[in-house]
Amino acid sequence: MSKEKKTAIQPKREENFPEWYQQVIKQADMAENSPIRGCMVIKPWGYTLWENIRNVLDKKFKKTGHVNAYFPLFIPLHLMEKEAEHVEGFAKECAVVTHHRLQSDQKHGLKPAGKLEEPLVIRPTSETIIGEMFAKWVQSYRDLPLLINQWANIVRWEMRTRLFLRTTEFLWQEGHTAHQTEKEAWEETLTILDIYKDFAEEYMAIPVLTGEKTENERFPGAIKTLCIEAMMQDRKALQSGTSHFLGQNFAKASNIQFQDQNGDLSYVWTTSWGVSTRLIGGIIMVHGDDNGMCLPPRLAPTQVVILPIIKNDSEKEYVFDYCNKIAVALQEKQYYDKQIEVSLDTREMNAGEKSWEWIKKGVPVILEIGPRDIQNDSVFVYRRDKTRPERYSQKRDIFIDEIIDVLDTIQNALFNRAQAFRNEHTREIDDYTSFQQFFTPHKKSDLEIFGGFALSHWCGSTECENKINEDLSVSIRCIPLSKEKSDKGKCILCGKQSMGRVVFARAY
Amino acid sequence: MSKEKKTAIQPKREENFPEWYQQVIKQADMAENSPIRGCMVIKPWGYTLWENIRNVLDKKFKKTGHVNAYFPLFIPLHLMEKEAEHVEGFAKECAVVTHHRLQSDQKHGLKPAGKLEEPLVIRPTSETIIGEMFAKWVQSYRDLPLLINQWANIVRWEMRTRLFLRTTEFLWQEGHTAHQTEKEAWEETLTILDIYKDFAEEYMAIPVLTGEKTENERFPGAIKTLCIEAMMQDRKALQSGTSHFLGQNFAKASNIQFQDQNGDLSYVWTTSWGVSTRLIGGIIMVHGDDNGMCLPPRLAPTQVVILPIIKNDSEKEYVFDYCNKIAVALQEKQYYDKQIEVSLDTREMNAGEKSWEWIKKGVPVILEIGPRDIQNDSVFVYRRDKTRPERYSQKRDIFIDEIIDVLDTIQNALFNRAQAFRNEHTREIDDYTSFQQFFTPHKKSDLEIFGGFALSHWCGSTECENKINEDLSVSIRCIPLSKEKSDKGKCILCGKQSMGRVVFARAY
Repeated sequence: MSKEKKTAIQPKREENFPEWYQQVIKQADMAENSPIRGCMVIKPWGYTLWENIRNVLDKKFKKTGHVNAYFPLFIPLHLMEKEAEHVEGFAKECAVVTHHRLQSDQKHGLKPAGKLEEPLVIRPTSETIIGEMFAKWVQSYRDLPLLINQWANIVRWEMRTRLFLRTTEFLWQEGHTAHQTEKEAWEETLTILDIYKDFAEEYMAIPVLTGEKTENERFPGAIKTLCIEAMMQDRKALQSGTSHFLGQNFAKASNIQFQDQNGDLSYVWTTSWGVSTRLIGGIIMVHGDDNGMCLPPRLAPTQVVILPIIKNDSEKEYVFDYCNKIAVALQEKQYYDKQIEVSLDTREMNAGEKSWEWIKKGVPVILEIGPRDIQNDSVFVYRRDKTRPERYSQKRDIFIDEIIDVLDTIQNALFNRAQAFRNEHTREIDDYTSFQQFFTPHKKSDLEIFGGFALSHWCGSTECENKINEDLSVSIRCIPLSKEKSDKGKCILCGKQSMGRVVFARAY
Repeated sequence: MSKEKKTAIQPKREENFPEWYQQVIKQADMAENSPIRGCMVIKPWGYTLWENIRNVLDKKFKKTGHVNAYFPLFIPLHLMEKEAEHVEGFAKECAVVTHHRLQSDQKHGLKPAGKLEEPLVIRPTSETIIGEMFAKWVQSYRDLPLLINQWANIVRWEMRTRLFLRTTEFLWQEGHTAHQTEKEAWEETLTILDIYKDFAEEYMAIPVLTGEKTENERFPGAIKTLCIEAMMQDRKALQSGTSHFLGQNFAKASNIQFQDQNGDLSYVWTTSWGVSTRLIGGIIMVHGDDNGMCLPPRLAPTQVVILPIIKNDSEKEYVFDYCNKIAVALQEKQYYDKQIEVSLDTREMNAGEKSWEWIKKGVPVILEIGPRDIQNDSVFVYRRDKTRPERYSQKRDIFIDEIIDVLDTIQNALFNRAQAFRNEHTREIDDYTSFQQFFTPHKKSDLEIFGGFALSHWCGSTECENKINEDLSVSIRCIPLSKEKSDKGKCILCGKQSMGRVVFARAY
């Protein structure tokens, strides 16, 4: 192995991507495992990122007519059972409450007591309990559409968990809507998919593909599941948001009926859709580098960190004072409807150590300011999307004047880099041998390189889909919504006719 | 019974206060019971009020150096047991998860399966799980203070529940902090009490008393519990927020130690504090009237509703147009760091019915605008804190210019009314006969009038406290923090010496 520059994160991405991921989270102090199997603690740096994600999405939902509400954490067993496919899909991962108090037992200490007449499932998703309420709320066509969103915690008992990507408890939003017509519900499903795509691209700086899931990967109980899919730096896909067209399945299960303009009774058409704290995992795996996190400016908890560089106490006052003035000037600016967040870090510790702490946290712009910079009325700028040798000195006034542009330049650079990476690793493949090669791990230095996204033809059969999955652990991530009509071809596996290419990849 | 004007809420407050309360919530469409015993659904109007409460408090916490994080919903039994008083206090109301999947059984349908090795309690509060994490995070005095807040759902299995006031699941914030010294932790406890008091008075328009709880009413495991207490319109007290000084109890239970400047190992001093969706119940019971909710403008989901009054379709366009211009002009104004929220209600329905809907929802200002108003370039204004006959016409420009003043006038009027009411029903009482009379229900028309707050002397014994509670269902709401030294006296029950007056009341 060649001798390489030491990086802040060990191992590097190319050495061991999963371990690199855990280390980035640890070094950026975003989250950690708790004493409860599969449950994480989201630490302030990670939680503030989630708050920022939530605030932007919440505004987008409200702007499109949705309102927030809150439904119970518990779902009685008999409600879960109402939609057959739904309960089958979630039965294996339901945490169940069976008792409502603790009782002391001299021999064994505390034991659960007060057995419930009916066990309560902790919501793995809320279609059934919300459907139950919708049935009461909807009487007439005047009550429609019903456009509700909920920010909540969810529990799915997962066997293999990983911070942010798959945890027993996670935070999410779940939208639930009811409509008078099939067309309206389908349009809602698409509207939300657009919101998710725009959010991913404009805020997370992550390019995403949109499309429909195959039956295999569909939400239990849905007619169609639409999704956004992103490519991580290990070239695996991350399903980053889903929007489900539920048809009348849940309306029938929960008996949600309305009287239309003619006085006739009909079932409503419903949708549901969600994104979760998993998005944070996506941001890490798309933008992070061997020095840690790299945050898109529009979501970063702090956009600019100012580090005063002082050698002795006599310099302290005027350096701090100069830094503080810059902080105040920056905070007066608005960036994407919010005041720019600035941290002035005056902790007494080694300057290099301090700087690396913020680099690992992924702050977009780091300013170092010492007596010499002040003499030149300038600041020393480090852009997190660049390398350390690319740091530069800039006149203070110009830096302040141009900060919004700098932040947007970084935001765009991150998006463009991610898009170039995805394009580089996306390929149309038309024969199964090439397809197998594309997805067969081969060593290059220490990195196991898999192909990425293969755009290949598929006949539409679950059989071919399963066979490919068994062979190569590759699944169909989505069927693009807008297929060019002319793009017919032959299934990559069986050779039967296909109506268009679908996206194959390994996935989280 | 005298013939009285019909009110929007039946029964009236004086006829049946508890039932009036339920009706206000129903008519304002704030929340309702769910199929799960004791769990409520918070509907959009109620949830938006909660969002507004949360946003204001969240800013205040952040301004005082606190950061948000998120901890697991589940607490393993062995962690709950670490603090003896704590687990004893909560054992009777713990929902317990014992299984992690559902399994189909041909005879009985779905049953819980996959028994957990250790049962998990759903957090009734998070001192123990957060303490466990703090023990890892705190090593040195440099890690202190640790100032964390969490917005979360909580479950306490209550036997008698009531919407917002006492529900099995509720939403709250819980602050948890760790400090180097006793003094610092005590100051934090007081700082938070101040934040709660300021928030109650400035935003909820609810005057509150502050003080310390007696041992009987202290948080399980705390050294001292401070609280804010408000008087409802039935003259009962509502504990509206608590701030606990936990000493080193939880630090010792969770082994949270730090190395001080001299290298010595010590336990930290901790605090915890919270307010919940119960605050919404307080707003209803303090400000609501016989026509429904009455929202303090600084927290109202909508501050101004505009109702176009049209008789035929030909008027529609120019009336809507005029209304819309006013809406836009109002929305450009800032009220307490937020744009004024305006609803232009163009639904086709009976004008009177529509107006009453908004009155019941408690919107501070309702504008009715028809062709005649437009002719005079004016608007017809209804202030929710006044009666309907007090509606008045106002020139459009003046109304827009003065809207902030109008909102603040309403806000202050609500506070002053609540304060006058509380003062009227607060009394110093020095003999037990008068005390008994004060708290003995006597009919006046159909209202059961109880006294309110009695400021009386108490010897400090749990015996006297319990005896009074058994006799009259009256408890000590708080011991005022700042007692005048000279105010010594004799215990209202036993006649022994007392160091000062305490606040007695019936309570929720």
